[in-house]
Amino acid sequence: MSEFDLIDRFFNRPSLRSPLGVGDDCALLQPAPGMQLAVSSDMLVEGRHFLSTVDPFRLGHKALAVNLSDLAACGARPLAFTLALAMPRAEAKWLEPFSRGLLALADAHGCELVGGDTTRGPLNICITVFGEVSQGQALLRSGARAGDDLYVSGTLGDARLALEVFRGTLSVPAPVFDAARLRMEQPLPRVALGQSLLGIASAAIDISDGLLGDLRHILRQSNVGVRLDTAAACGLMACTRPEAPGGAFALDGERQLEYVLAGGDDYEFAFTAPPARRDAVQAAAAQAGTPVTRIGRIEAEPGLRLVDATGERLERHYTAFDHFA
Amino acid sequence: MSEFDLIDRFFNRPSLRSPLGVGDDCALLQPAPGMQLAVSSDMLVEGRHFLSTVDPFRLGHKALAVNLSDLAACGARPLAFTLALAMPRAEAKWLEPFSRGLLALADAHGCELVGGDTTRGPLNICITVFGEVSQGQALLRSGARAGDDLYVSGTLGDARLALEVFRGTLSVPAPVFDAARLRMEQPLPRVALGQSLLGIASAAIDISDGLLGDLRHILRQSNVGVRLDTAAACGLMACTRPEAPGGAFALDGERQLEYVLAGGDDYEFAFTAPPARRDAVQAAAAQAGTPVTRIGRIEAEPGLRLVDATGERLERHYTAFDHFA
Repeated sequence: MSEFDLIDRFFNRPSLRSPLGVGDDCALLQPAPGMQLAVSSDMLVEGRHFLSTVDPFRLGHKALAVNLSDLAACGARPLAFTLALAMPRAEAKWLEPFSRGLLALADAHGCELVGGDTTRGPLNICITVFGEVSQGQALLRSGARAGDDLYVSGTLGDARLALEVFRGTLSVPAPVFDAARLRMEQPLPRVALGQSLLGIASAAIDISDGLLGDLRHILRQSNVGVRLDTAAACGLMACTRPEAPGGAFALDGERQLEYVLAGGDDYEFAFTAPPARRDAVQAAAAQAGTPVTRIGRIEAEPGLRLVDATGERLERHYTAFDHFA
Repeated sequence: MSEFDLIDRFFNRPSLRSPLGVGDDCALLQPAPGMQLAVSSDMLVEGRHFLSTVDPFRLGHKALAVNLSDLAACGARPLAFTLALAMPRAEAKWLEPFSRGLLALADAHGCELVGGDTTRGPLNICITVFGEVSQGQALLRSGARAGDDLYVSGTLGDARLALEVFRGTLSVPAPVFDAARLRMEQPLPRVALGQSLLGIASAAIDISDGLLGDLRHILRQSNVGVRLDTAAACGLMACTRPEAPGGAFALDGERQLEYVLAGGDDYEFAFTAPPARRDAVQAAAAQAGTPVTRIGRIEAEPGLRLVDATGERLERHYTAFDHFA
């Protein structure tokens, strides 16, 4: 299979947005008048971001999902993406499900593959995604103000639980593992939520490197601090809830706290909004079909303060995820 | 060195075009009214696109140059780029010259680093570059017409000569090798030429996969053929010219023909223009400071016809560069 056969067979589709289609070296994009183009780029490396045994369909989905999540957190509507793919071999049995998973998610969000590159090399997937957002409306990290509420979307910590089972540090019943593994391998980017929070949230970020690690970017860029209710946060772990498959799983409390606060690989948002906008936040969440939970309050004093259900300070130190630490 | 230290130290600079700067997960771009955004993505893998021993400064330059070349061939003006970088280790002694080479070329073209990703993994450099071009004006592959002249920019085949010296199939004097190696390791993208050919050229393509291989895309997408003067093409090899460092190097004629027609790694353009625009083509080339040479003529009959200086047909078959052949 040649490079161009490969593109034609697995990645070429009728073009809507790009006048040139996939396979040209250059794609042309046209944001609507008054719109800014939002751009995000993420690279997934085998053994680092995914296991070599992962289902290629799920991997194709995830490669785009992690990029859409970054785009979504600034409130942009997805338009198009490029895919640069290095592979040791061009094998249909891998490319077929990979492209199917990738393009199914792309179709679900009307996000068109407009170009890229394929080459031989250690498996590496680099996607750059483009979206549009009204000029000056994008959700930034710098807009949080003292008094704002802190929210998190969806659920947190289950992807880390699945990773620890793979690592062998934890053993859980099969239904718990299967649900957690799906969260890790096929995350749903919060595309609708980002757009519905435009004009309501004061700051937002994708927390894929862990809640506390990514929250620090909002605190630093907004020059504020936060008081975070760990009891509310702990309730965010899906597998510990009564409605989980197989019922609530009782995880050790310290592990639960760590997975929720610093687990990583959760493609959810942390965002802030003024208390006067609580109803608007809940309406936006309902419109997007994504639950959001209030877990803290922004304060003028810089720093991160964890408190328990009674308001007592907790001292915990987690290592933020860092590729080069 | 942490991931964020690394970004701050080597890649963060005052931002002009992106309101968010490097380090945010999402960059915002604003094409001017009436302009389309041109997008190109290329991935460079160690051992495949460059040798592990290459000077990191030159590698940084080349990683951006190969992307700018694709953008230039459609006539776009560079605006910005993202860099996704996988490395086995974060080492200042490599990152310092790499970022210097990368950003020096970026500055020379007013092309701003607006975002990206860094991760641990086998060395892999994925750049996505953005430029703008007036709506409907981009140079495409589909515009060549029977009767048009075929041109090539700059010189061809010297990068392949350097590669063959590295491979040990050829031995050349040191000044010949040094000049050819510079062409291979630090190519100059023809950014000014692309823009000056807007409204003059009927079709254009970057011929980095080899002249004949890439020319085929123009022929197929324009539904035409070409008669190519191999004698004119052979004169394009810089090291065989009297003005070359150390004087004209006499290369075996068949090798010379192969390196020029199918050498690869030449970041030059093949482009077509009507004979009535010959003066305009030369004026555009002079304005861009890039010589261009007429080497053939587009014909209605599909296919590629090589002829020698006397007009006799030559039969040669070269393997086009293909990462998965």
